[in-house]
Amino acid sequence: MMKPLKLVVIGGGSSYTPELVEGIIDNQKSLQVSEIWLVDIEKGQEKLAIIEGLSRRMIEKANCPIKIVATLDRREAIKNATYIITQIRVGQLKMRRNDEYISIKHGVVGQETTGAGGFMKALRTIPVMLDICKDIEELAPDAWLLNFTNPAGIITEAILKHSNVNVIGLCNNPINFYKKFAKTYQVPMKDVSINFVGINHLIWITGFYIKGQSRIEDILTGKSDSYEAKNIPDFGWDLEFLQSLKAIPCGYHKYYYQTDQILEKQREEYSRNETRADQVQQVEKELFEIYQNPNVQEKPKALEQRGGAYYSEAAIELIKSIHLDSKKTHTLNVKNNGTIPCLLNDACIEVNCVVENHQITPLQVGSIPPQIRGLLQHVKAYEELTVKAAVTGNRGIALQALTLHPLIPSVDKAKSIFDEMLAVNEQYLSQFDLEIKL
Amino acid sequence: MMKPLKLVVIGGGSSYTPELVEGIIDNQKSLQVSEIWLVDIEKGQEKLAIIEGLSRRMIEKANCPIKIVATLDRREAIKNATYIITQIRVGQLKMRRNDEYISIKHGVVGQETTGAGGFMKALRTIPVMLDICKDIEELAPDAWLLNFTNPAGIITEAILKHSNVNVIGLCNNPINFYKKFAKTYQVPMKDVSINFVGINHLIWITGFYIKGQSRIEDILTGKSDSYEAKNIPDFGWDLEFLQSLKAIPCGYHKYYYQTDQILEKQREEYSRNETRADQVQQVEKELFEIYQNPNVQEKPKALEQRGGAYYSEAAIELIKSIHLDSKKTHTLNVKNNGTIPCLLNDACIEVNCVVENHQITPLQVGSIPPQIRGLLQHVKAYEELTVKAAVTGNRGIALQALTLHPLIPSVDKAKSIFDEMLAVNEQYLSQFDLEIKL
Amino acid sequence: MMKPLKLVVIGGGSSYTPELVEGIIDNQKSLQVSEIWLVDIEKGQEKLAIIEGLSRRMIEKANCPIKIVATLDRREAIKNATYIITQIRVGQLKMRRNDEYISIKHGVVGQETTGAGGFMKALRTIPVMLDICKDIEELAPDAWLLNFTNPAGIITEAILKHSNVNVIGLCNNPINFYKKFAKTYQVPMKDVSINFVGINHLIWITGFYIKGQSRIEDILTGKSDSYEAKNIPDFGWDLEFLQSLKAIPCGYHKYYYQTDQILEKQREEYSRNETRADQVQQVEKELFEIYQNPNVQEKPKALEQRGGAYYSEAAIELIKSIHLDSKKTHTLNVKNNGTIPCLLNDACIEVNCVVENHQITPLQVGSIPPQIRGLLQHVKAYEELTVKAAVTGNRGIALQALTLHPLIPSVDKAKSIFDEMLAVNEQYLSQFDLEIKL
Amino acid sequence: MMKPLKLVVIGGGSSYTPELVEGIIDNQKSLQVSEIWLVDIEKGQEKLAIIEGLSRRMIEKANCPIKIVATLDRREAIKNATYIITQIRVGQLKMRRNDEYISIKHGVVGQETTGAGGFMKALRTIPVMLDICKDIEELAPDAWLLNFTNPAGIITEAILKHSNVNVIGLCNNPINFYKKFAKTYQVPMKDVSINFVGINHLIWITGFYIKGQSRIEDILTGKSDSYEAKNIPDFGWDLEFLQSLKAIPCGYHKYYYQTDQILEKQREEYSRNETRADQVQQVEKELFEIYQNPNVQEKPKALEQRGGAYYSEAAIELIKSIHLDSKKTHTLNVKNNGTIPCLLNDACIEVNCVVENHQITPLQVGSIPPQIRGLLQHVKAYEELTVKAAVTGNRGIALQALTLHPLIPSVDKAKSIFDEMLAVNEQYLSQFDLEIKL
Repeated sequence: MMKPLKLVVIGGGSSYTPELVEGIIDNQKSLQVSEIWLVDIEKGQEKLAIIEGLSRRMIEKANCPIKIVATLDRREAIKNATYIITQIRVGQLKMRRNDEYISIKHGVVGQETTGAGGFMKALRTIPVMLDICKDIEELAPDAWLLNFTNPAGIITEAILKHSNVNVIGLCNNPINFYKKFAKTYQVPMKDVSINFVGINHLIWITGFYIKGQSRIEDILTGKSDSYEAKNIPDFGWDLEFLQSLKAIPCGYHKYYYQTDQILEKQREEYSRNETRADQVQQVEKELFEIYQNPNVQEKPKALEQRGGAYYSEAAIELIKSIHLDSKKTHTLNVKNNGTIPCLLNDACIEVNCVVENHQITPLQVGSIPPQIRGLLQHVKAYEELTVKAAVTGNRGIALQALTLHPLIPSVDKAKSIFDEMLAVNEQYLSQFDLEIKL
Repeated sequence: MMKPLKLVVIGGGSSYTPELVEGIIDNQKSLQVSEIWLVDIEKGQEKLAIIEGLSRRMIEKANCPIKIVATLDRREAIKNATYIITQIRVGQLKMRRNDEYISIKHGVVGQETTGAGGFMKALRTIPVMLDICKDIEELAPDAWLLNFTNPAGIITEAILKHSNVNVIGLCNNPINFYKKFAKTYQVPMKDVSINFVGINHLIWITGFYIKGQSRIEDILTGKSDSYEAKNIPDFGWDLEFLQSLKAIPCGYHKYYYQTDQILEKQREEYSRNETRADQVQQVEKELFEIYQNPNVQEKPKALEQRGGAYYSEAAIELIKSIHLDSKKTHTLNVKNNGTIPCLLNDACIEVNCVVENHQITPLQVGSIPPQIRGLLQHVKAYEELTVKAAVTGNRGIALQALTLHPLIPSVDKAKSIFDEMLAVNEQYLSQFDLEIKL
Repeated sequence: MMKPLKLVVIGGGSSYTPELVEGIIDNQKSLQVSEIWLVDIEKGQEKLAIIEGLSRRMIEKANCPIKIVATLDRREAIKNATYIITQIRVGQLKMRRNDEYISIKHGVVGQETTGAGGFMKALRTIPVMLDICKDIEELAPDAWLLNFTNPAGIITEAILKHSNVNVIGLCNNPINFYKKFAKTYQVPMKDVSINFVGINHLIWITGFYIKGQSRIEDILTGKSDSYEAKNIPDFGWDLEFLQSLKAIPCGYHKYYYQTDQILEKQREEYSRNETRADQVQQVEKELFEIYQNPNVQEKPKALEQRGGAYYSEAAIELIKSIHLDSKKTHTLNVKNNGTIPCLLNDACIEVNCVVENHQITPLQVGSIPPQIRGLLQHVKAYEELTVKAAVTGNRGIALQALTLHPLIPSVDKAKSIFDEMLAVNEQYLSQFDLEIKL
Repeated sequence: MMKPLKLVVIGGGSSYTPELVEGIIDNQKSLQVSEIWLVDIEKGQEKLAIIEGLSRRMIEKANCPIKIVATLDRREAIKNATYIITQIRVGQLKMRRNDEYISIKHGVVGQETTGAGGFMKALRTIPVMLDICKDIEELAPDAWLLNFTNPAGIITEAILKHSNVNVIGLCNNPINFYKKFAKTYQVPMKDVSINFVGINHLIWITGFYIKGQSRIEDILTGKSDSYEAKNIPDFGWDLEFLQSLKAIPCGYHKYYYQTDQILEKQREEYSRNETRADQVQQVEKELFEIYQNPNVQEKPKALEQRGGAYYSEAAIELIKSIHLDSKKTHTLNVKNNGTIPCLLNDACIEVNCVVENHQITPLQVGSIPPQIRGLLQHVKAYEELTVKAAVTGNRGIALQALTLHPLIPSVDKAKSIFDEMLAVNEQYLSQFDLEIKL
């Protein structure tokens, strides 16, 4: 009775893909995937071929008869897809590097998804994602789109507002908290419950439970520590701050709560030409060297350094919940619709959702304490403007978005950064009329 | 590690109690109940003794070593309770009969929980329930209160607003829909999912799923039929109405959607001195005759005629979810807190909730179509005023509440009914200063 | 600098028009109206000619050089209009009579704007009004539309939702309260302030002030009386009810608060073939006899019996406020937009508004007590569905609207009434596909 | 009929008082003030005596028989007051200087009402203001309290939340915009209308009108310029920014929109020991030298340099509107109550209000564009926490407030600044238990 599962991975040439393939193999008994389509663009052809080869070897070794197709023909891939995963990087790592360097040069945080860097990535990426969604609307209107493309919350909001696709935004940030707490308390993941509130890359944990017992005080009082992402510096949290916050911040909160320390570190990395983008480029290079080794038949350990740990598990578990209707709770990026009443109904939020009857229903969050609310509303308003700027190509809206961002100190800085970013991103921003000087 | 489970049943002499005892016996393996305290008032002493006897015989037969205590000492019972079930009827069936007869005499619907009858029952009951809650706050502050006392939604709202007790309102209406659909589609209950929206005795089903497949169209188009409560006349639903409502009403909706037919039937029953209260009195009489038979060691079949079918299952399953942290979804009466944004935050609503980590979290409902919203908001405003009238003893507020009720045609009728009801309820309404003529 | 004022009256053949013409004459010094266009349809040609004649004689007598044009060419009239007044009656009084008779026959309130009668009038009228609005959008996009067409709140909501015209809904109900209080307290109207809350024909007075002193207690305690509309029976208000309502109802509230008395009176009128529609037809006949008398050069006194007293003053005063930017407060039907937070943002409400800078800004109302809120939300949800039914021609939505109305006792009654009304209104309801039997 | 007007000025020894006295003299014909009580504390006794002397000479010269009382007995003054103006500075200018210096030293904006400086001023001031309010509740419960004490929005919110006094927050920022526009367009003030949205010292102008004609584009496109406060540096606004903001910022927006330029300027002033507090101290010194000259019988011109221009006019005009019920619109700090739906109901906002019938009713603002909303919500959440911190003396809440402020770059900075400020403010912060090291 279950439909055959055709999984499409857009951005299939990503170094993350082997983790996904491994996840599928591990769950093939229940999922019964029939086809995996790996899609990429011409520029990614070489990497796609390497990933295709490794994926075939993995499938083979696992003795798992799944059809693998690697293709540049996105529309052919999408046709009749059941689940589509998007994990693209418009402009590749080179443009991410630009985002970081321009930001830091102007004295503001340079980061893939937060601040000016995330803003620029969103402007580049939203038009491409909406194009993909047009194809899905036409060729696989019932498919579920699982979006990992960053900034995942902003991208998902753009899709929720400007397409009819069944989209869910996903991030590995929540699952890593589950993993971390499971490890700390030596329990299986199913015994960990976490109350999240917020938006992608800006979620607070307002409660967590081990076997139903509240344990958040362990972290708020420093008896235990929280999950630290590999891609974000770790300066530790001030305990008085944690106790009065009454919540555990996520790693990305450091850009807001420890801005000066982050900036200092970034300036130093910048001076050495070793920002996160540089590190990632190096890791990628090494990964693909391993991947193309015909003797490698498994996901290499080294991938875990890459920052996206457990992203595959998040995706596979969600697909299982939808496909097998297993009624589990997942932490997802979805339309607010009153779940967090202090945000607009059409905002994209990241909260716990029950996945049941092929529907995604958020668990009610209700009112939010002011220490969380103020920053959350501010960043969400910036995201709302960013989506609008990307969709309309209106420079004025873009300028307002960037100026509004809490990490941008002035209109002048916003203009300088935006001008410089526009210049190097010209080819990705056809929605903006670049002749009009902002 | 689990606390020993002391269960207290206030209104223990109710004819329903054997169903509850049966439920406990059936689940004793997982629940490990240590004590059941049956509490009643002096007037109910005889019935309490009968129930106590039957309960002992049932426990004995099941070879289930639970301590049974029957007592009139409510405070002793409550002390250190883990779970408390309230199923009281202030004024007994006699006052219910008055509610029905006075209402019908004045040409309006006479019903236990809806309209003028429910209003009067609420005024009688809320002060007693708040008294019980004061005892709980003092003697068992961590206990969970499962309230079945009708009108369950209004009573629960009063407790939510005027006490600190962990209260949950429960009704057998939702579980009967699950049972009915499971039977119709020949699946176990776990394969049935239902989306409810509304308030107690005024819930609409906006979707239901059998093994994850939507089947609501079966009922909206008349291919199947809905659950019909034993205690409400059944005239069938107009299919065009159902299809445009896009939802399945519950039985109590008939009082609103089929008022004239209900009234006709009630007038006829009234003329024969056979309203629902009369029928229930008769059923009760018969039940207690069976109960006191020392050879009866099980819940008699006849109890199922009583209208409260599966109420025990609703209670036991909820206790299991809380006690064993089994993370199930239940349909409960809880504080709104934004779940249904068109109602006030402090309103009591009946919706699906995830029970996890000893917390009750509603699943977000979001916006509600106008055909449901208008009636829902109207009745909820009446309930808000009713709670306020019961707590303050303010006659003006009481008059506003009753006048506002959609089933009351005028201020004059409201006054006549209220005056007459006040007279016969004098002893139960000490909060109202009865010397001031309304 | 002020634009020349071209006033267009759609439904110019109405018996009310002379009052309007009188109002213009009285204010011509400040308003400087250059043209009045009286528009009607072919069926109304004869009445239009009579009104045109009288208007000319009035203008002449007042020695007031305003150009009067009577025409059936609506588009020609609208072209470049500055202010447009709509006061049409689709189906004339004959259809209103049908509305009343069918309703009363089925045992429910039969009234021009409330209940089934108002519902049917809305379905007939909304398509015509939206057609007029299309012309305005094209031919006079900057014009202000002052809508008196009943049910004025529902019609205005339809226009607010489905056109871009600058529409304001107007009713003579509020101004009559001002007049009444001014007379009672012997002060000029400018010394009377009234706080209104609600929607058209369902407004409550929550405060009123004479020279800044609160006097609402005078009415709530029966020391003074409220305004009673000529077209609504007067049974008086119960004082305990008023005091606990803490507000003064308007005349139309009687249909809700005194339904049984109203019904009794209507049944009696029905049995004599003398419902309000019959009376109005008689008044109209007499008025037009007077109007066509070439010696009549003024608005006849008899017009004041017609029910629309001071409607002209309401219109002229509003036009003056907009045109001369006189910064006065008016009670108007406008988009809610948060003014009454318990109603949807796009609902049409009737509240005090400051008219300034050619903008209409409501005065914030804030939260509303439950005794008012419940009925208000219920009726507004009915209105929302009625607008949707009229615009879509969807029978299911129409059935839901009528069933939801608090004065309709059941689905069956709603269907019978709607079926019968559809039959006699066939020619006015092309939006409904009448072949599909509801 | 009008009550005799007893005006009390708490902080009567302020250098601003002569402007107020002048305003009263100019309006004495309509206001008929009978007594002015100037209240101060012991430390302010000398200044109070000087102000008293000057006030007497002014009154005398104007031949205006108003009784002047200067006193340290606050309760005696408040007794039976009709209007009370609060213009106090807890800790005098010395503490303001500390606020500025500590802030700038730590690299953040140092300002009287914005950022860390405003935060500290609020903590010092709220307890004193609530004490005053207790006296008013007891001794003059019907009096109107006009609060000018800064940060006026936060102080007013504290009073709205924690007392029953009829409080209105007032600022000279709005009136200066009226004055500026009236001057630019050469029209009387009554021909200027301005739409304000926001909170004290963070208001945006979303529209302004000269004789009813919209003229905001003049400023957004640089054809005219906006009002520039004397106490805030003027760097000019970027025109692309203004056009896309679609609103005119107020002077205090520079701290957010031009943070880096402000900081640069402040650091330079700091290095010269000439921050705003230093300048004000110098101006004050000079003013009091003039004031005590027995030949001075009028408000000296030099007072206009002080930054509070037209504050007297704002106060007097408001008192006139309330006292004479003149139904004018004023821009005031009041309880939100749904006027700006994206802020909490109990927040204090600064918006246009109609003053009528001795009531203050805000004009509905409705939804707010994201470029304004994000910053507004963020700062308002900070203010909410600041009020809570001041009232509870909870260090954790204080730390959250300061950390949340958009101008504070990190938890560490917040702690360092707070610690240092606590040390020097010890005597003013008895609500905080200073032994607990934060």
